[in-house]
Amino acid sequence: MFETIAIVGATGAVGGIIRKLLQEREFPYKNIRFLASKRSAGTTIEFAGKSYTVEEMTPEAFQGIDLAIGSTPDPVAKEFVPWAKAAGCIVVDESGFWRMDPTVPLVIPEVNPEAAFTHQGLIASPNCSTTQMVQSLKPLHDAGRVRRVIVSTYQATSGAGVGGQRELVDASRAALDGADFTPETFSHSIAFNLIPQIGSHKHAGYTSEEMKMVFETRKILGDESIQVCPTCVRVPVSNCHSESILVETERKITVEEARELFAATPGLKVIDDVASGKYPMPKDCDGDDDTYIGRIREDLSCENGLAFWCVSDNLRKGAATNAVQIAELLVRNGAAV
Amino acid sequence: MFETIAIVGATGAVGGIIRKLLQEREFPYKNIRFLASKRSAGTTIEFAGKSYTVEEMTPEAFQGIDLAIGSTPDPVAKEFVPWAKAAGCIVVDESGFWRMDPTVPLVIPEVNPEAAFTHQGLIASPNCSTTQMVQSLKPLHDAGRVRRVIVSTYQATSGAGVGGQRELVDASRAALDGADFTPETFSHSIAFNLIPQIGSHKHAGYTSEEMKMVFETRKILGDESIQVCPTCVRVPVSNCHSESILVETERKITVEEARELFAATPGLKVIDDVASGKYPMPKDCDGDDDTYIGRIREDLSCENGLAFWCVSDNLRKGAATNAVQIAELLVRNGAAV
Repeated sequence: MFETIAIVGATGAVGGIIRKLLQEREFPYKNIRFLASKRSAGTTIEFAGKSYTVEEMTPEAFQGIDLAIGSTPDPVAKEFVPWAKAAGCIVVDESGFWRMDPTVPLVIPEVNPEAAFTHQGLIASPNCSTTQMVQSLKPLHDAGRVRRVIVSTYQATSGAGVGGQRELVDASRAALDGADFTPETFSHSIAFNLIPQIGSHKHAGYTSEEMKMVFETRKILGDESIQVCPTCVRVPVSNCHSESILVETERKITVEEARELFAATPGLKVIDDVASGKYPMPKDCDGDDDTYIGRIREDLSCENGLAFWCVSDNLRKGAATNAVQIAELLVRNGAAV
Repeated sequence: MFETIAIVGATGAVGGIIRKLLQEREFPYKNIRFLASKRSAGTTIEFAGKSYTVEEMTPEAFQGIDLAIGSTPDPVAKEFVPWAKAAGCIVVDESGFWRMDPTVPLVIPEVNPEAAFTHQGLIASPNCSTTQMVQSLKPLHDAGRVRRVIVSTYQATSGAGVGGQRELVDASRAALDGADFTPETFSHSIAFNLIPQIGSHKHAGYTSEEMKMVFETRKILGDESIQVCPTCVRVPVSNCHSESILVETERKITVEEARELFAATPGLKVIDDVASGKYPMPKDCDGDDDTYIGRIREDLSCENGLAFWCVSDNLRKGAATNAVQIAELLVRNGAAV
């Protein structure tokens, strides 16, 4: 057990879910502290029947904390992680800043738990759109070796935080009422619209979100030869990311085999009966820790291809749940204190 | 010129746009008539400053009509087309019923205009999601031979007619107000949700909409060797379909070449500068007759692959505009009367 744990970014969308999960999953600790930016410091959080004052994230604040789960923007993670490590605190970090650092393991507990135990004080949790995809790729990779992945995402506004979800509501209401609306969180109106850009331009026409799906997939699966071609699109959905995935494997995997592989994999659930109108949809996966797979079918365009549809709560498994599961790994392994 | 023309399904969503287009484009005719189902017959339509009574679609109603543009559900088209042909009326049909009949040309005027002139009284206009994709594939196919297409669609509710658009508004308002809503047009709630099924189950886990994209693409491009793997998804957007397309060609086509090819193709427009947040979005393409292409980039996963994003007004180029353009082809060719 870690004696003193902390949530960094405790007042954000993911921070709020981490708080819920720690209680739901009875995460063990003696003391808990809540850290956030200066803006939120001083506010009160109710947790497990007690009131806590949110502390400002400073180098000194990490003294006495054994484990911190961080969910902050990248620039904040860049700053606080070295403070935490210097104070002897192990960090599970949700941000994108440290993920590709070769000294930092990037972990999905159902996929590469062993990597967690190689940590040097910091473990990164993957990008939300990567996590659900790699969860579904893992059993196929083990069974038939994944060679190539073509993925088009349908990403919810919650990926842009509480502000993204609020803006979807406000922009949609304005659109329905014929009122003017100026977007703030998104670069264009998200109401009844699609924005085929998530993140900034990064490489050869691909965005930062898309390149995360390329590089993080290889790192987590430990195979630099896997080719990924992603297209990331923001859709007017509040929560839960969806992905249309086509995967080519070295050995052909049939639909029946894929369905069995998915169904036997912890963290994955199969809902797959299109003739009866049954498949995963964002509205049904909200608040759930599993990643859902449906529309499983043989690729019509390539012998060893398999197409499927994958939906997951990006705030939970795509962020909070995965981070808490990494922390649980450390607890179970007794790697701490 | 056709002396007497008619719109069949005149009161539907696409029928309404066909009416607008005939006026906008100054389509030549002496007499015009409006046909619809029994339910809509007897209502009045204002057209070019005159009032017209909508006539019931019967075998007799087609007497004296030289050209009919039809936009009806498949079972209606199955019934009325033989009536029209028997009356000596040439039909341009928007429905899906006749498209794959080997005696019926399936035409996109910018892609295969020559096919129109082989008609035997009936020309079919393709499925909306096929049209915009094939428009964008055509210059690539001519330049480098398309071998394989992987497409994930983001299809607007207008594809399900006026009822689909209305249901998006009603369901969204109910969701924002926390009110109950029972979907009628769609099989699940479309408000802030995604439905990864369009049409019924057709073949090996693929839906009817998906198989249209496979078969119609081959027929229009006249190449049965083109492999297509589609995933069709309904999104909470009112109008304009979007598509994430990955195409593999026999000869490599660079991003620069593709951009030039697209830009030089009538009916296509390129908006492609992700670094400045410029790409096609449904909200910007509504009411436009062109098909828009952006996010053009080299496939990261295959030497001869090219990825791009394509948006088009499915009620216009995806339906009404294409049908009217086919009729214009016939007029220009003097193939009539």
